[in-house]
Amino acid sequence: MSQSRRSFASDNVAPAAPEVMAALARVNQGSVHSYGDDPETLRLTALARQSFGTDLTIFPVATGTAANALALAVLAPPFGAVYCHEAAHVNTDECGAPEFYTGGAKLLPLASPDGKLDARQLDAPIAHAREMGVHHVAPAAISISQATEWGTVYRPEELRTLTAAAHKYGLRVHMDGARFANAVAHLGCTPAEASWKCGVDVLTLGATKNGALAAEAVIFFKPELAQDFELRRKRAGHLFSKLRYMSAQLCACFEDELWLRHGRNANTLATRLAQGLTQRGIRLVQAVEANEVFALMPVKIIAALRAQGFEFYEWPAPRIDNQPIVRLVTAYDMVPADIDALLAAIAQV
Amino acid sequence: MSQSRRSFASDNVAPAAPEVMAALARVNQGSVHSYGDDPETLRLTALARQSFGTDLTIFPVATGTAANALALAVLAPPFGAVYCHEAAHVNTDECGAPEFYTGGAKLLPLASPDGKLDARQLDAPIAHAREMGVHHVAPAAISISQATEWGTVYRPEELRTLTAAAHKYGLRVHMDGARFANAVAHLGCTPAEASWKCGVDVLTLGATKNGALAAEAVIFFKPELAQDFELRRKRAGHLFSKLRYMSAQLCACFEDELWLRHGRNANTLATRLAQGLTQRGIRLVQAVEANEVFALMPVKIIAALRAQGFEFYEWPAPRIDNQPIVRLVTAYDMVPADIDALLAAIAQV
Amino acid sequence: MSQSRRSFASDNVAPAAPEVMAALARVNQGSVHSYGDDPETLRLTALARQSFGTDLTIFPVATGTAANALALAVLAPPFGAVYCHEAAHVNTDECGAPEFYTGGAKLLPLASPDGKLDARQLDAPIAHAREMGVHHVAPAAISISQATEWGTVYRPEELRTLTAAAHKYGLRVHMDGARFANAVAHLGCTPAEASWKCGVDVLTLGATKNGALAAEAVIFFKPELAQDFELRRKRAGHLFSKLRYMSAQLCACFEDELWLRHGRNANTLATRLAQGLTQRGIRLVQAVEANEVFALMPVKIIAALRAQGFEFYEWPAPRIDNQPIVRLVTAYDMVPADIDALLAAIAQV
Amino acid sequence: MSQSRRSFASDNVAPAAPEVMAALARVNQGSVHSYGDDPETLRLTALARQSFGTDLTIFPVATGTAANALALAVLAPPFGAVYCHEAAHVNTDECGAPEFYTGGAKLLPLASPDGKLDARQLDAPIAHAREMGVHHVAPAAISISQATEWGTVYRPEELRTLTAAAHKYGLRVHMDGARFANAVAHLGCTPAEASWKCGVDVLTLGATKNGALAAEAVIFFKPELAQDFELRRKRAGHLFSKLRYMSAQLCACFEDELWLRHGRNANTLATRLAQGLTQRGIRLVQAVEANEVFALMPVKIIAALRAQGFEFYEWPAPRIDNQPIVRLVTAYDMVPADIDALLAAIAQV
Repeated sequence: MSQSRRSFASDNVAPAAPEVMAALARVNQGSVHSYGDDPETLRLTALARQSFGTDLTIFPVATGTAANALALAVLAPPFGAVYCHEAAHVNTDECGAPEFYTGGAKLLPLASPDGKLDARQLDAPIAHAREMGVHHVAPAAISISQATEWGTVYRPEELRTLTAAAHKYGLRVHMDGARFANAVAHLGCTPAEASWKCGVDVLTLGATKNGALAAEAVIFFKPELAQDFELRRKRAGHLFSKLRYMSAQLCACFEDELWLRHGRNANTLATRLAQGLTQRGIRLVQAVEANEVFALMPVKIIAALRAQGFEFYEWPAPRIDNQPIVRLVTAYDMVPADIDALLAAIAQV
Repeated sequence: MSQSRRSFASDNVAPAAPEVMAALARVNQGSVHSYGDDPETLRLTALARQSFGTDLTIFPVATGTAANALALAVLAPPFGAVYCHEAAHVNTDECGAPEFYTGGAKLLPLASPDGKLDARQLDAPIAHAREMGVHHVAPAAISISQATEWGTVYRPEELRTLTAAAHKYGLRVHMDGARFANAVAHLGCTPAEASWKCGVDVLTLGATKNGALAAEAVIFFKPELAQDFELRRKRAGHLFSKLRYMSAQLCACFEDELWLRHGRNANTLATRLAQGLTQRGIRLVQAVEANEVFALMPVKIIAALRAQGFEFYEWPAPRIDNQPIVRLVTAYDMVPADIDALLAAIAQV
Repeated sequence: MSQSRRSFASDNVAPAAPEVMAALARVNQGSVHSYGDDPETLRLTALARQSFGTDLTIFPVATGTAANALALAVLAPPFGAVYCHEAAHVNTDECGAPEFYTGGAKLLPLASPDGKLDARQLDAPIAHAREMGVHHVAPAAISISQATEWGTVYRPEELRTLTAAAHKYGLRVHMDGARFANAVAHLGCTPAEASWKCGVDVLTLGATKNGALAAEAVIFFKPELAQDFELRRKRAGHLFSKLRYMSAQLCACFEDELWLRHGRNANTLATRLAQGLTQRGIRLVQAVEANEVFALMPVKIIAALRAQGFEFYEWPAPRIDNQPIVRLVTAYDMVPADIDALLAAIAQV
Repeated sequence: MSQSRRSFASDNVAPAAPEVMAALARVNQGSVHSYGDDPETLRLTALARQSFGTDLTIFPVATGTAANALALAVLAPPFGAVYCHEAAHVNTDECGAPEFYTGGAKLLPLASPDGKLDARQLDAPIAHAREMGVHHVAPAAISISQATEWGTVYRPEELRTLTAAAHKYGLRVHMDGARFANAVAHLGCTPAEASWKCGVDVLTLGATKNGALAAEAVIFFKPELAQDFELRRKRAGHLFSKLRYMSAQLCACFEDELWLRHGRNANTLATRLAQGLTQRGIRLVQAVEANEVFALMPVKIIAALRAQGFEFYEWPAPRIDNQPIVRLVTAYDMVPADIDALLAAIAQV
């Protein structure tokens, strides 16, 4: 019975969507020019421009870590500093990929309770860096996650204030959009309104967690920044010879707004889960705005759920009232019954 | 009509094999642990061990450049030297990926007419390096291609002599096996007899050119060398969250010796092509032992073929008797008619 | 008059000691083998072994940043983590040199009020790193400063507890000894008792701040760690062709315990300064154990001193009771009158 | 007796000139701002501008390897290509320093019998790089040595043709001037006429081999290229806290044209040596234009000289008529008697 339990460990345990598999089959015909000189990759650029309502350059890669690290390597020199939240995926989960790709740039982590950076947090570090001169790495960029690692979502006006401060200080703005679709779905705005219209220079757009098999994209809203990207991608081994298969997955996501429908579904189920938990007396530690629920869960309940085959992570943060924080992630392909099964199991304990 | 022309530009323009596509569909079910903690990845290890008849560690990645660069980063320190043929893919076609991944190691190219290294070519460079001491990068590894970039194939006894010399000098042996299946098919030996039994320490095994969509593998025959590999792969952005899809492609290749059948077919057609060219008075510049044909082709014929939609590369090597060298690559999925169409077009000129 | 003010900005503004200059003149004779194959460099090893009472390998370099970064590159792989105090010079003042030299390792800063690390601070980060597996940089080393950046000095028993914890976790121990002579002078112990006998694996020993012109040393107490050092030093451009001049400076420091006498003098004057400040109502924010005094100074006094030509830095730490923290550094060659001049100026305000 | 033999192994075995030692003593007074904010470093800029008759930016470092590698890191991105002679010091003697500092750029060696590059040698490699696109490292710079590693000297018109070709292809021009003073002395021109007036963008100027203790300089003739240099130098550990001592050495070299007088003396003695060798039937293999003599020397003579305590290197190049090539280097401080002693010893054999 426990096999039927859906995992809440991460949205990357889900399979690929039927539309994505169909797209792979569709492009699997005949011999096609390699390394991106193919019709599907052309089509991807057109679809992305349409989805974001602007001119842009888009490069498919296969993992979020690659997308983030390549983007940061473009924005920060080896002797540069990148300001990010202390919980940022680039800082905590990528085994130093940004340091590798930039050639040794330094991530300078900033703290906040909800995973968001605030414009005023830049003032002191930048002033300090300037005073230190050549002894300090050179401020180069900020990297923000949308949705954040704490499942919260920047509102457009928050983003605008933050990116304006960054730009004022000469910093470029990178957005880690591993869950960008969830953020847009939450905001009910257009992709443009959550990205370049808010001052984002480079977006790494996730699809793998949202229905693809293995596909992410690096999107440059300022073409001049994209200049060296293809050389960096190639020498990192992230230029696929049969690139059409990566492009096809991304095309499938953009078509008919599949990505946004997926994001909406995951969000809705996260909200359902959050409400159910609250009703059962479980306290949430963050606003649930995307597809992640952070909750204080008594160890007894944790143990009971695990015994029944439910999977999820305890979050690496201090306990509150002696209760661990657990993270429960909903996926694009879950159904209400998946949520209700978990809630029912909690009710039983 | 020209649309029906098969491209001879590279074996990476071919689509994926039906068996590979079926494998993707097969594993696309339910939620599965990410990052390789999945049954398909387990199964891959078992299949690879069976195919190579030995204990080994295998890691799937998505591109040959990644596979090569990660392997070399394990074998050579940042201050190391890697000896390779001047035409080696790692030296000429990867935009400095080995230098990036190793942190600045130096590829020291050696020349030979047929793309193979000879054991005696190591003596002088190693003696020189030792005399130079700390002023010279430290000899660390050799990297050899099997089949070579000139379409030739090392015989096992050649390999044994070469790797024995390398090991005597304390060098590790890397084999770039982008076309390893073609080499094994040519030799008519077992995969073991063309790799670890000949002293190969690490093999990067290509599948993308041989029927996969995007899948390569790094295979360590000495488990102690594999120790840091997973950290390096992760921080390079080459650890796929949904790794099962990479593993599934490789499994499909190993099953029922699909990879060797593919290699055999491509080789057979290359031989058919070589014979046809010779009959039509075109001179070959290399023995045709795998799936690549290097031929001296009059510019008039080149132009005529291109006008008819045939695709292939002129090779970056000096002309002979004022004729360019062209490379014609056959693919795993070609049929005799594809070859005959090209030969017929040449006959017409 | 203000020209006669001694600067309290740093101990690196002082000139070189007469003994050091004499040593340079002494070795400036005849032609000598380059790159360290010279008698003076041999002599340095002997003197260092005698001073530390043990077998060791010592390499002269010219700057503290080079010494630290080279040492860390030996101890931490590109995918490694180095734990250090958040105020550590390697973390704050070297423009990312450790990241550059290691090839992208990550410094993970830990906080404490007095600049020292405590053994228990390692437990949680190491547990977290292990849980994260390949997603987290691999714990590789700790880097501690003796004396610390807050002018405090680890006691031998503190060091032993800390290094034992580090070694238990498989971490190597690096000591940044830019002010090691001051620490030893404070402790009244032998150099051995403050270094290898307390579990230090690699010491970067400063001389430039302590009477040399430009000379530091990397000292390996475990010879097997030194294996690659010379290659790393060479390719960093830190192997001097005329190495005898670097070695001579260090020899002069070791001879007749010049370094310890220098350290003692600077410490004594720092204590004199600290007492004088306290008597004048200036509060100290750290115990004064080496040659640095951190004091809360009213802005009015700061301004008055600067107007008279006294130089020192405000420390980049939050104000306390609205008063900035200033750092006052005494140097090896100061005399009591230098201190008294500053104290007199404060008394006048 | 053999102790009195001057070594012909390298010009870096010589001691420092009295003028350089005097300069060190002169600046060894009082406390001075660190990290280059000192009068001597200011004076260096003025002297260098006067010597080169142009606006320029000059940065002192301590070794030639550091100077070269830092310069190349400014000129070539991590994914860049640097074309140089196969015998270039940066390619053969620096243990991969350029690869380290650039973050993995590739040196692409070109061959010629006399150590010089010819403009036409760039055409084919650049055409090939363009055809290869992202698969090839991006052509970024050329690095030329003046005097060359074969002891020859580019004439200004040769330089102009070469740098014009480089600039046409968008390549920056680096000159390794470890023996620039010797080259200028040979040409009888001004330093300007052998550098920026011939299209050199960045010059690394050697002083250590020419009378300094440890001092080299990186000189930017285009200030916009110097922008990031100070950050790179700092994070490489090549920013000296007591920079005045480096600057003082360079000032001493520029003053009263000491550097050119030194270069002239070494050249004159090399010519004396070359003539003497020829008279004694020893064949030269290169024109002697600077302070290096390359000669074919019978092994019997080599052995006899070494037995008498003379030191010099056999050059790592194939023997001619079964005789090794030896390199004999004269130094700034040699006198005719040093040469004559060697010649007399040869005559005796």
